[in-house]
Amino acid sequence: MTETPPFAVIAREGPDQPPVTPELHDLYRGFEKALLIPLWTEIGGLMPFHPRSKATPHRWEWSTLMDLATRAGGLVPVGRGGERRAIALANPSLGGRPYATPTLWAAIQYLMPGENAPEHRHTQNAFRFVVEGEGVWTVVERDPIPMRRGDFLPQAGTNWHAHHNAARTPMAWIDGLDIPFQYEIEGQFFDVGREELTEAEHATPERSRAERLWGHPGIAPVSRIGAAEGSPLLAYRWVDTDAALIDQLDLEREGFPGTIEPGHALIRFTNPTTGGDVLPTIRTQFHRITRGTRTAARRETGSSVYQVFDGSGQVTVGEHSWSVTRGDLFVVPSWQSFTVTSQASPSDSDSGALDLFQFSDAPIFTKLNLFRCAVEDTP
Amino acid sequence: MTETPPFAVIAREGPDQPPVTPELHDLYRGFEKALLIPLWTEIGGLMPFHPRSKATPHRWEWSTLMDLATRAGGLVPVGRGGERRAIALANPSLGGRPYATPTLWAAIQYLMPGENAPEHRHTQNAFRFVVEGEGVWTVVERDPIPMRRGDFLPQAGTNWHAHHNAARTPMAWIDGLDIPFQYEIEGQFFDVGREELTEAEHATPERSRAERLWGHPGIAPVSRIGAAEGSPLLAYRWVDTDAALIDQLDLEREGFPGTIEPGHALIRFTNPTTGGDVLPTIRTQFHRITRGTRTAARRETGSSVYQVFDGSGQVTVGEHSWSVTRGDLFVVPSWQSFTVTSQASPSDSDSGALDLFQFSDAPIFTKLNLFRCAVEDTP
Amino acid sequence: MTETPPFAVIAREGPDQPPVTPELHDLYRGFEKALLIPLWTEIGGLMPFHPRSKATPHRWEWSTLMDLATRAGGLVPVGRGGERRAIALANPSLGGRPYATPTLWAAIQYLMPGENAPEHRHTQNAFRFVVEGEGVWTVVERDPIPMRRGDFLPQAGTNWHAHHNAARTPMAWIDGLDIPFQYEIEGQFFDVGREELTEAEHATPERSRAERLWGHPGIAPVSRIGAAEGSPLLAYRWVDTDAALIDQLDLEREGFPGTIEPGHALIRFTNPTTGGDVLPTIRTQFHRITRGTRTAARRETGSSVYQVFDGSGQVTVGEHSWSVTRGDLFVVPSWQSFTVTSQASPSDSDSGALDLFQFSDAPIFTKLNLFRCAVEDTP
Amino acid sequence: MTETPPFAVIAREGPDQPPVTPELHDLYRGFEKALLIPLWTEIGGLMPFHPRSKATPHRWEWSTLMDLATRAGGLVPVGRGGERRAIALANPSLGGRPYATPTLWAAIQYLMPGENAPEHRHTQNAFRFVVEGEGVWTVVERDPIPMRRGDFLPQAGTNWHAHHNAARTPMAWIDGLDIPFQYEIEGQFFDVGREELTEAEHATPERSRAERLWGHPGIAPVSRIGAAEGSPLLAYRWVDTDAALIDQLDLEREGFPGTIEPGHALIRFTNPTTGGDVLPTIRTQFHRITRGTRTAARRETGSSVYQVFDGSGQVTVGEHSWSVTRGDLFVVPSWQSFTVTSQASPSDSDSGALDLFQFSDAPIFTKLNLFRCAVEDTP
Repeated sequence: MTETPPFAVIAREGPDQPPVTPELHDLYRGFEKALLIPLWTEIGGLMPFHPRSKATPHRWEWSTLMDLATRAGGLVPVGRGGERRAIALANPSLGGRPYATPTLWAAIQYLMPGENAPEHRHTQNAFRFVVEGEGVWTVVERDPIPMRRGDFLPQAGTNWHAHHNAARTPMAWIDGLDIPFQYEIEGQFFDVGREELTEAEHATPERSRAERLWGHPGIAPVSRIGAAEGSPLLAYRWVDTDAALIDQLDLEREGFPGTIEPGHALIRFTNPTTGGDVLPTIRTQFHRITRGTRTAARRETGSSVYQVFDGSGQVTVGEHSWSVTRGDLFVVPSWQSFTVTSQASPSDSDSGALDLFQFSDAPIFTKLNLFRCAVEDTP
Repeated sequence: MTETPPFAVIAREGPDQPPVTPELHDLYRGFEKALLIPLWTEIGGLMPFHPRSKATPHRWEWSTLMDLATRAGGLVPVGRGGERRAIALANPSLGGRPYATPTLWAAIQYLMPGENAPEHRHTQNAFRFVVEGEGVWTVVERDPIPMRRGDFLPQAGTNWHAHHNAARTPMAWIDGLDIPFQYEIEGQFFDVGREELTEAEHATPERSRAERLWGHPGIAPVSRIGAAEGSPLLAYRWVDTDAALIDQLDLEREGFPGTIEPGHALIRFTNPTTGGDVLPTIRTQFHRITRGTRTAARRETGSSVYQVFDGSGQVTVGEHSWSVTRGDLFVVPSWQSFTVTSQASPSDSDSGALDLFQFSDAPIFTKLNLFRCAVEDTP
Repeated sequence: MTETPPFAVIAREGPDQPPVTPELHDLYRGFEKALLIPLWTEIGGLMPFHPRSKATPHRWEWSTLMDLATRAGGLVPVGRGGERRAIALANPSLGGRPYATPTLWAAIQYLMPGENAPEHRHTQNAFRFVVEGEGVWTVVERDPIPMRRGDFLPQAGTNWHAHHNAARTPMAWIDGLDIPFQYEIEGQFFDVGREELTEAEHATPERSRAERLWGHPGIAPVSRIGAAEGSPLLAYRWVDTDAALIDQLDLEREGFPGTIEPGHALIRFTNPTTGGDVLPTIRTQFHRITRGTRTAARRETGSSVYQVFDGSGQVTVGEHSWSVTRGDLFVVPSWQSFTVTSQASPSDSDSGALDLFQFSDAPIFTKLNLFRCAVEDTP
Repeated sequence: MTETPPFAVIAREGPDQPPVTPELHDLYRGFEKALLIPLWTEIGGLMPFHPRSKATPHRWEWSTLMDLATRAGGLVPVGRGGERRAIALANPSLGGRPYATPTLWAAIQYLMPGENAPEHRHTQNAFRFVVEGEGVWTVVERDPIPMRRGDFLPQAGTNWHAHHNAARTPMAWIDGLDIPFQYEIEGQFFDVGREELTEAEHATPERSRAERLWGHPGIAPVSRIGAAEGSPLLAYRWVDTDAALIDQLDLEREGFPGTIEPGHALIRFTNPTTGGDVLPTIRTQFHRITRGTRTAARRETGSSVYQVFDGSGQVTVGEHSWSVTRGDLFVVPSWQSFTVTSQASPSDSDSGALDLFQFSDAPIFTKLNLFRCAVEDTP
């Protein structure tokens, strides 16, 4: 037994609590000394009637992120030890930890021309999503993969990876990982890779080898057949995502099913070897909401991070509401009501719809039989 | 007990057989009367050391098939009752049944300009593969799907379907089904559909609705998410198949893995909701074998039907060997050794490789724990 | 092309058939020569509206089987080559093949005191079920397993196995296998084993090692964890089966769910590593139907063989009906209506209910998306 | 943006850190204001080379627990609101939370004669394990289940449940749940049930209905067939667990495989509908370690709680080591080396072996592709 108890058991008053007597105080001191805590003083917080998230809905403006990332570009080197020039969203009510939500990490990563982010691997599942720019490639398992606006690049745990900026301008993108989740459950491993990539890996092909093997719809290479835990397709290109969204909205216009609700196209990035989520712990989706459309309010167990890819609109999460525009990020905590309204008359510069990239921890919930969702009436 | 036994139990001589005595004859008459057959007279045939197929390796020449199909086009109407102008390969040792192999049906189907093959559905899993022509569309679950050279169109059991030739010329293609298998195990149902399709179904779109929902690599429509028994992607287009084969051979040339063996690209058509086979009972694959390449001899449990899509070469199946060229079909029975050599100097008209479409009953074997294969040394 | 066509294509008359003209005859001769058969002459038989089984409902009386098996015991040796003194049910309409149904083999096996059935293995999935006697053990993968009345002993494909009669009296039991199915699809392999078992294998333990590892409800040995294709539990003892049936009927009497319909307890033997069927291709179940109960008429795709374990009653399959009593076997072909009535006043010698052991090919149908059943109104 | 940043970004010194300049301070103030935290200051803690658990290995002595629980029995009522007289192990380094490990809750629950713990349900997966006593039953989904020494009673999320002490003496047992895990990922729901149970539910049957349907080895009731997320078998009785452990050690003595290592029998409680873990997030196992045996040191991702069921011995977890005896509990944090030595000469009162009940969060890791284990050399 420890000498000084590391915590206090506080007697509470209430109809469902035992009378606060000297004997109860003695008992609670005994609990403290023995490293015990009773359920009856804790149950309301620990076992609520429904999820009450520790996280706060919050929006981060892209202009602020880019400004700070640019300044970091001039002050912070990229190399072994720090590993990446990545700056993470820190939810204001998660204790000063770099957690966007209790399970998800979201960061802007910034690479100057000619810079290399060194090779490493880890059990944390990761992806990159590019909201602007091109010229950087990431090399996953020695396969160089160019990154351009709109591309989604998953990279399942334990794949070796490095990044290189082959362009003449800096480039920024979004990293999403399950760092907080793996930190909490304590399953993470990290290995340092080679200090230098080969010359062949410095070449920038138009398409990765992963795409050449797996990027053909419904077609699998027989030499690689079999269910893989993470997607072997390492780049989901904007041209395909955009076409899939256009197709859904066209079908809706022609009177056929396809969209998830009127004016709201929704696609999921999947692992072609299983048809399931692209990463073992992270679900990634892309929404297109047509001008003036308001989505039905929806609650889900688990949390999401969204980034506005294009267009602008109004987002409501629980009791928070913000205007959002290209690049802005926001978080939707567990079981908070979420709705989006796309701007009715968008500016000249956008495509006329609100495009949202979403990632969430839904696979954790679905695999453990904990996923629930509720769709509320549309207004 | 039946009066006249429907079969005879024949006494056999041999070191592993009982002495043929009057008592044994009496016993065998008793067996016949009681509808019984002993194992000891049958075991060698029933339980061989390895599969000895009832089917014979055989090749059907495309020119003969087309000639007969064209003549049938002038003599045989298409309509309710006969349902399809389909002419099936009948393996010469399968008892005069229209069976290409003990489990698979393969037929040429032929449709004259303006003709309609009426709507029906059945539990038999089916697909079409187009070796030449265009202008016919098939309508599956009211979704019109144009068919062109090189396209593969799966259609899982119980989908309603009809065909229409909207062109000015006749068109022929290959149908593959699991009719013999379902006939043997006795699980088949058949329903007659509408007599007329709607006007909208007579329109010929460039792409089916199925392709607009499911034809984007690695991308799923969230409104339709979930594992389906048969592929919801109803057309696998030649442009994608060809690109996937080119990519594998390019990777090989660059020194990367991808092909199944040197000079031999191999892709499988898969169900994007599961990553598994495109149909519950039928596997479909496409081979490209570069000039002068000989594939390793291979045996597999289960049978395949191949059609030459392009190029020419020499095929050896067990003790049979044939030259094959565009459109020719041949069967590989269970556990027969199979190898192909692509023509070293192809004619002007082909692409310079031997392209083979293959379908087989492999899913039956893999799901029931009966799949085996053996690769023999290359010569 | 073969010189003499191995079959004839017969022109048929009918509203859905082409006019029978000399040109049609010529066409059909062309089909024969080219080894082709049209769909339009065959479709009704090949693709019926619902399964019309090639098999005939039939009952085999146990007394006849035992009499013939006993006579075979005196005339037919057991040894390498013939392998087993097994006498198979031959359905009267399956072409004189030793097939109980199109997919299932059912045989009585008979072993004299001191006899050994030699060790072998095969891909065919098998089981034994004991309707009377004891004293024989089967040795599966060198694990000796005693067999007694009511025991069910599965033995998945490729397990080595042999039998030995250690008693002073002959013993008979039922073997069920998927021999016809594997013969039709052509996936079978067979290997000859050792000529002599070891002394340790000749010992007769009370319980097999398989039962000691896997025979505890809901409990798995961690050293063997993992999904196995066939059940690692090699004996399902009568004491457990009987208790499970008693429990279901007791629950029904107390007003709780459990039975499949009133007065009808039904259990399934399962693979404890998956919860699924005990063998990859064969489902095995045990029914107890209380006195005077009539089961609802039921149709299923796929076929079953039943053996009466105890009691007596009346069985109706399609248009056939028989009285059955202990040991009798009967077959229910695909999609035939099936109902049983347990005798209202059973004889002194039985337990007061009709106990039926059933095996079927249902896993083939469920895994390939072909299982259907229909329950008709109770009378 | 919030006015006062809720956290500080601290500049660190080091070869892998940027030079600490006024500009860097400005940048970090900008990060704080914008709710951002850089990776480069956090990576070592967040993404360690291997799991470094926040939890501390610790042992709780049963005598202390029982003493405090007994005192709580006199002071703390059981009823709606507090719900249960449960006292949880609080790991000394988990921030004063009632967490045995970062994912697992372990508590002693204590019920006085005649007391009722009211009905509720929750998404948290739970079980009870009884180290001493009998006379309490738990009622799960209206099925009363008696609890006795050695019994393990799983109860998957969303099952209604209540407890009642029908004996004349108090009774204590262990509750295990995934409360911390669900609290962290935020998926939990809780519902209050009926205030009174029915008279029928107050009866104490010998066996639960769950056991009557599912407690027969390898046998499933056909009326309930199908994969369930949590085990439908609601009690795993000591007589079965003990028999399975005895069988493994007997097999070892006879020279056959079965134990996990010499002198160490290990069984897992499984869901009979799937063969997998008994609860979606919790694995439960039972160890028997023969006298004088030392287990191989082992590390695993994820954490476990053990309770000594019988015997005594020495436990080493990382750098901690304790003597343990009946009822003592201890935790093994993620990736800490763990070994046990069973007492060589046990006291008269025990069975001669060290019996350990274990529960862990392994299903979370296996389903999310994060499970790793390493067995170190035996000493």
